[in-house]
Amino acid sequence: MRLYDSLISGNGYKVRLLLSMLGRAYDRIEVDILKGESRTPDFLALNPNGRIPLLVLDDGRALAESNAILYYLADDTPYFPSEKFARASVLQWMCFEQYSHEPYIAVARFWREHLDMTPEREAALAEKKAQGDKALAVMESHLGDQDWFVGDTMSIADIALYAYTHVADEGGFDLAPYPAIRAWLGRIASAPGYCPITQA
Amino acid sequence: MRLYDSLISGNGYKVRLLLSMLGRAYDRIEVDILKGESRTPDFLALNPNGRIPLLVLDDGRALAESNAILYYLADDTPYFPSEKFARASVLQWMCFEQYSHEPYIAVARFWREHLDMTPEREAALAEKKAQGDKALAVMESHLGDQDWFVGDTMSIADIALYAYTHVADEGGFDLAPYPAIRAWLGRIASAPGYCPITQA
Repeated sequence: MRLYDSLISGNGYKVRLLLSMLGRAYDRIEVDILKGESRTPDFLALNPNGRIPLLVLDDGRALAESNAILYYLADDTPYFPSEKFARASVLQWMCFEQYSHEPYIAVARFWREHLDMTPEREAALAEKKAQGDKALAVMESHLGDQDWFVGDTMSIADIALYAYTHVADEGGFDLAPYPAIRAWLGRIASAPGYCPITQA
Repeated sequence: MRLYDSLISGNGYKVRLLLSMLGRAYDRIEVDILKGESRTPDFLALNPNGRIPLLVLDDGRALAESNAILYYLADDTPYFPSEKFARASVLQWMCFEQYSHEPYIAVARFWREHLDMTPEREAALAEKKAQGDKALAVMESHLGDQDWFVGDTMSIADIALYAYTHVADEGGFDLAPYPAIRAWLGRIASAPGYCPITQA
């Protein structure tokens, strides 16, 4: 299988991290999203929504959306539970990540690292900061009495939330007030098969 | 089971529509989100992220996030496929809905219907319009040669995308340029068990 990916993307890293933990081989194709390589006609033929990560199976079928790819790869592995309510709870946290976390914490990082900080973006950054801290507070509260987001082992909910949380400082977030989050980040970073976000 | 819901929410409607199509009984509790009823201490004890819809099972377990609730309720029904790649593809379209569709089409509707249109919101609305039309174009292209988003029957991917697409005009979107979307909306509206968004 082929993974269209970008090393600057936490969404791509989610998939790389799971594949590394699963010990699965794959071909990685770096897409320069800053140069518009995810919007070329060739790429849009694979994913009309023009985004990475994109997983292309050996038979040519393509799957987009980081959390859908995690679900596909983790099914029948220890990273996705078998019990019905637990499965839905994993998806709940992945939806939380995409809607209440990523648009603030990941986008703040992307703006600060890769875009010009226009006065409009500078003003919008305050709102991103407030909403991102709300998401971190929800996570901190949840992790106060449990090691993992769902059940008692690491799942793709943890992997999805780890990707942008562990580099939240690059978006201007300070994790000092979130000790439970910091302990959880440490548990993931010391798990078998872990790889850093910068690793191709 | 109890559904904490709001009749002005398309996210709540996704769940109501699936439950209606499944013919399942439930207690519906209207939450006045405009009056902050999803941010009270009692509600935050059920969902620390302070959002509806929220499904509470008879044993007290609570599940948040509309698309995770759809997944939980549709598993083992005709609205969620059994084949592994098809299942992931359904999730892919639900992720697309949450990330590339809802923040533009649903939020534009919410602002226009329920909030004061400040100059800042008026300026942001142009961006919402552009991004929302991009999402509609992706949907139109996908529906050009198939009746449903995944496979050859209606799934929770269709239900998730239907909720805000069929009221996109309330957010200022014109569906005239999207004939495949309009035909698909008609197929859903004439399906067994259909209920309108205004129905409690």
